[in-house]
Amino acid sequence: MPNTVGVIGGGQLARMMVPPAIELGLGIRVLAETAGESADIAVTQLGDYRNADDVLRFAEGVDVVTFDHEHVPQSVLRALVAAGVSVHPGPDALVFAQDKLRMRERLAALGVPVPDWAAVASVDELTAFLAEHGGRAVVKTPRGGYDGKGVRVVSDAAEVSDWFEGGEPLLVEELVEFRRELSQMLARRPSGEIALWPVVESIQRGGVCVEVIAPAPDTSEKLREVAAEIAITIASELGVTGALAVELFETTDDRLLVNELAMRPHNSGHWTIDGSATSQFEQHLRAVLDLPLGPTGTREPWSVMVNVLGGTTADRYPAALADQPGAKYHFYGKEPRPGRKVGHVTTGGDELEDVVFRARAAAAFFED
Amino acid sequence: MPNTVGVIGGGQLARMMVPPAIELGLGIRVLAETAGESADIAVTQLGDYRNADDVLRFAEGVDVVTFDHEHVPQSVLRALVAAGVSVHPGPDALVFAQDKLRMRERLAALGVPVPDWAAVASVDELTAFLAEHGGRAVVKTPRGGYDGKGVRVVSDAAEVSDWFEGGEPLLVEELVEFRRELSQMLARRPSGEIALWPVVESIQRGGVCVEVIAPAPDTSEKLREVAAEIAITIASELGVTGALAVELFETTDDRLLVNELAMRPHNSGHWTIDGSATSQFEQHLRAVLDLPLGPTGTREPWSVMVNVLGGTTADRYPAALADQPGAKYHFYGKEPRPGRKVGHVTTGGDELEDVVFRARAAAAFFED
Repeated sequence: MPNTVGVIGGGQLARMMVPPAIELGLGIRVLAETAGESADIAVTQLGDYRNADDVLRFAEGVDVVTFDHEHVPQSVLRALVAAGVSVHPGPDALVFAQDKLRMRERLAALGVPVPDWAAVASVDELTAFLAEHGGRAVVKTPRGGYDGKGVRVVSDAAEVSDWFEGGEPLLVEELVEFRRELSQMLARRPSGEIALWPVVESIQRGGVCVEVIAPAPDTSEKLREVAAEIAITIASELGVTGALAVELFETTDDRLLVNELAMRPHNSGHWTIDGSATSQFEQHLRAVLDLPLGPTGTREPWSVMVNVLGGTTADRYPAALADQPGAKYHFYGKEPRPGRKVGHVTTGGDELEDVVFRARAAAAFFED
Repeated sequence: MPNTVGVIGGGQLARMMVPPAIELGLGIRVLAETAGESADIAVTQLGDYRNADDVLRFAEGVDVVTFDHEHVPQSVLRALVAAGVSVHPGPDALVFAQDKLRMRERLAALGVPVPDWAAVASVDELTAFLAEHGGRAVVKTPRGGYDGKGVRVVSDAAEVSDWFEGGEPLLVEELVEFRRELSQMLARRPSGEIALWPVVESIQRGGVCVEVIAPAPDTSEKLREVAAEIAITIASELGVTGALAVELFETTDDRLLVNELAMRPHNSGHWTIDGSATSQFEQHLRAVLDLPLGPTGTREPWSVMVNVLGGTTADRYPAALADQPGAKYHFYGKEPRPGRKVGHVTTGGDELEDVVFRARAAAAFFED
């Protein structure tokens, strides 16, 4: 049985794949850029994920290659496939998580509901889109954005004139009037099996996820069905393998529109480590190895995850654990910088208000 | 805050401390005898735990030293303490887990209920004990026993004449008529805080634990109170720090007698990884770092753990996961040998019979 997983990228997502790999007795190896990254304990090679030679050498020691991030170039991914390496998700799927324009084109073609959007190659084209959409819109660089980077809300095309200098078209989207943001996560095996977690509410601040409530409160059965159907369509039609996060807007007129896709474990699924029968990290490992998936039910009626942004663990644990001994603390071994995700805390229980309170209280100990 | 734990010994108990260390963002380093042991991913030094120089060098890089096994000699432990190293459990406590005669003497002095026992230095003394206890008894080498090794049930003193050749006294105990074996686990911090898990039933075969049911079925409140009281007395009076397992006989006349002690995470607590709000491995790390302890409630009404003895994971996962996708599988990266503990499986749920069935079914896939 193939049982050694290679992860490209040494960040916290790779790090959080290590505990379930150890528990399941699977091998795990990580290709990191530099020493001392989050997944350091499993790093077996330092190298450049943009360099096909580095990545091919890394792939020799593993049974399947997967990812901590979506930045590995298509040329490198295709070199892996050409060399016979098992890559999950594969390049044909991953391109839609790498390029937001390709994603919008493909989802629109599939009939999946998305915000109004356009590819704009000039200030004039963007000005025209703005005129048709109430004078404001969201402009995104198709590639390389993350946690709010590469995203600007503009009311004048001149506000992104620097981005047009790159010569590549930009993605522009209507400003959706949304009630809240949701995330539907699932995992899919190469052989087709899919397992979905409950849809969750994701609370963002400045383009960064700060809090997740699982399951999303006050959802109708219809909403849950539509969210699941959208994610299943995307996973199946795009051939996604491993974990998939579909970030959704719940609009003020009760529609669900797809915002972003991530084809890997995702911040909106961190609650599953403590709150689900199978964590997204274990499930991702099972999926990329094409092993049967685990159950995705909740362990408690409510789970709440709060990110720790900035801050430090250095001397905070005694006070935090004394105050909130039952919270589950997760830290990523990262040097704290203002706004940087250095960890998260998850709590669970029967009463949502209480669960939210405890998660925020626990996380607050680590914030500056 | 001290936050790097050093573990002496590279077996599965050290291995299972690694996931919670990663999750909590603590440092973990392991001193192993040889490359490729269970805890390989966290090994930072190869060396001999009986060699004070090796162990002192290892201790330089960590904030606290703890153990995968109880075989580190007292002389080495005392060299660590003399060098100012924080050692948990410390030598004054650990001696009672290392030497069964010392343990019996001390527990008897504390008034903790134990089987009838004696230190016997000759065939004649053992013959006398046998004559007073119905002609059969259990003889144990005071040191170095494990999983049924160093234990013989005899009806003639000649059956352990080889053991007397060592010149050290042996421990002899009455053959207790017991209904079943129980285990009461707890963790204790250096500052005194104690947290107990529910008492569990431990099913042995050939001196090896094969199955654990948590909590132990059909226990009276009185039994639970007595088990807790015994374990708290032992932990407090012996100054135990970290995890403590008190293995108990429930006699046919409704008494609890202490069988063995282990001052570390223990097979009878493996169910806590999946079945308790705080696993014994996370709790042990918190305890030896003198951090506030976590809650020890059960996540489901019943948890059942079944050891995988011998067997292999090599090609069994697809079938096992297809049949029992919700069982939690734990493998230790050990080469299989007949009867060797290579992993365990835990299941949970509302109906004990069903939970037992699923755990046994899942484990059976890996057995030869």
